[in-house]
Amino acid sequence: MTDRPDLPPGLAELVSEVRPVDLAKSRAARERLDALAKPPGSLGRLERLAERLAGATGLPPPPLERRAILVFAADHGVAARGVSAYPGEVTAAVLRAVADGNAGVSVVARSVGAEVVAVDVGTTRPVEAPGVLSRRIARGSHDLSRGPALSEDHAMRAIEVGFELAREVAARADVIGLGEVGIGNTTVAAALAHVLAGIPPEIAVGPGTGVDGDGLARKRAIVGRAAARIPASGGAWRTLRELGGLEVAALVGAALGAATAGRPVVLDGYTSGAAALVARGLGPDVAGWLFAGHRSAEPGHGAILQVLGLEPVLDLSMRLGEGTGAALAIPILDAAGAVLREMATLESVMDR
Amino acid sequence: MTDRPDLPPGLAELVSEVRPVDLAKSRAARERLDALAKPPGSLGRLERLAERLAGATGLPPPPLERRAILVFAADHGVAARGVSAYPGEVTAAVLRAVADGNAGVSVVARSVGAEVVAVDVGTTRPVEAPGVLSRRIARGSHDLSRGPALSEDHAMRAIEVGFELAREVAARADVIGLGEVGIGNTTVAAALAHVLAGIPPEIAVGPGTGVDGDGLARKRAIVGRAAARIPASGGAWRTLRELGGLEVAALVGAALGAATAGRPVVLDGYTSGAAALVARGLGPDVAGWLFAGHRSAEPGHGAILQVLGLEPVLDLSMRLGEGTGAALAIPILDAAGAVLREMATLESVMDR
Repeated sequence: MTDRPDLPPGLAELVSEVRPVDLAKSRAARERLDALAKPPGSLGRLERLAERLAGATGLPPPPLERRAILVFAADHGVAARGVSAYPGEVTAAVLRAVADGNAGVSVVARSVGAEVVAVDVGTTRPVEAPGVLSRRIARGSHDLSRGPALSEDHAMRAIEVGFELAREVAARADVIGLGEVGIGNTTVAAALAHVLAGIPPEIAVGPGTGVDGDGLARKRAIVGRAAARIPASGGAWRTLRELGGLEVAALVGAALGAATAGRPVVLDGYTSGAAALVARGLGPDVAGWLFAGHRSAEPGHGAILQVLGLEPVLDLSMRLGEGTGAALAIPILDAAGAVLREMATLESVMDR
Repeated sequence: MTDRPDLPPGLAELVSEVRPVDLAKSRAARERLDALAKPPGSLGRLERLAERLAGATGLPPPPLERRAILVFAADHGVAARGVSAYPGEVTAAVLRAVADGNAGVSVVARSVGAEVVAVDVGTTRPVEAPGVLSRRIARGSHDLSRGPALSEDHAMRAIEVGFELAREVAARADVIGLGEVGIGNTTVAAALAHVLAGIPPEIAVGPGTGVDGDGLARKRAIVGRAAARIPASGGAWRTLRELGGLEVAALVGAALGAATAGRPVVLDGYTSGAAALVARGLGPDVAGWLFAGHRSAEPGHGAILQVLGLEPVLDLSMRLGEGTGAALAIPILDAAGAVLREMATLESVMDR
């Protein structure tokens, strides 16, 4: 029994399965960090990562040896409105490259020893290739500039796909990174950031794949109009359906699913950050399980991270998406846990 | 025959062995990056790392699978002047922890698959432990507040130790990170930064292990006085001897040695950054081989990186030293090379 009349029963049920992280473990980690053989605080933000990791996975945190990046791909009706430097066909082409192992995320993930799980949740042209899981909900989302991007049924099913896949992958992975492919999805992310975090369109709407001038103005106007349809009391569920897209809904489900499986979730850039806003709006307990892999070059992303209370591991002005920033951050997060697990205390070092 | 009357013949010889990196390879890497299946520039600073790596190790750069961190330890006479939150004995204790595998750098290096090579080049109390290479030059450096920290002979021998060890390690490592242990060495680094990069003492002198108030004022006064002994035309070699210390000289030699062996060098924080200033002052060609693992919390470190023209991989407000920031950055640098080696072009992706 869940007390969430604002959500469909199935969704309320998923959300209620997320347990809060253990803040007592984070506090104990803080104490241990201060006793280690180093000047207090001298590992900087690595210490805060270690604390939060302990809250999620225990003290000391187990190694993050088995690594996976979930990459959800889908198309967006709004891509036809000239909001991207690329046509919608690029979504399927990039997803195929992910499956072939030579997309950006494939390369970076392999380099850090992470498995990539590529999932088609709704490209316009289906990608049938070995290495792509077909979990198609629809041929992309509707154009958010004209009306709701997702039906209730499609949004719910995409969330369930993400949730189930994350739980399945969690059985063989210690940490789950989230990535996406979807031409047009920084428009979606900007609209979500505007509605759910109050980030004004001038900041929330950035160049994405590389639009400027008229393209940027179009993107801003579309975001403003779509947001105006959503009442202030709309909430995360309503907002997700209005703005989409299928891969965003799958990311929301994956964050919830990984958290219920006790796995830390490493976010990538703007789109997964926007999905995290939705997930937190559905159930605030998920927030403790989330780690920000990097701060992207999209101007609104830093604002999303502030609202989520997350400090990015990396800040390399990347804006490729796909999960590249999440994959790159995993070795750093793992090292933060190793500090709690393996580093000597000052007392033991001086006693020798 | 080398044309460096300002350097002793042995040092001029070492410096002359450093070849410049291949800028044509960097330019070719830049072209390749622009042809890859991603919006131009969307991998941000990872692209610049990839370009520079190609200049150093070729196009495409080979994997950085075999990783090593060279950690040089020595004491400093100036530590007796109250410039650190810790007594000098901590140097040897931390070096022992490095050898035991439970110091900060041991843990982080193990986590990223890097070997740690711990070297005693001159602690006050010798550290005899399995896992510590004894290459002792002296019982620490002299107090730089009273006169030259190193004799010409000691400085030269410490450089040779670093040079030879780096070349030895280069035979089994694709990339070499540099770290150090030495209570008092942020005072040395600050003085080097002040003299060699013109960074004013108010910025160059930071808290180090955690001094403030009177300690910080003392540290500033000492740096100012020591710097005043060095004429403007002093040069890197004279400056190194005046300010020390033994581990700094060894780091200088290691940077030169790794470069002559064709290995990229990943710097850690303030002390290795100051050593890089010295190395570049001896021979500018070394600069192309250097990568900044991170920007430390020491306020002068960012200024050193600007002078060196290096963008840090990480910016986590760390200030532990030991090579922790260098070790953490290696997986990112490796991934940058993998992008050039393995990622598909946009053309090949769209043609399928």
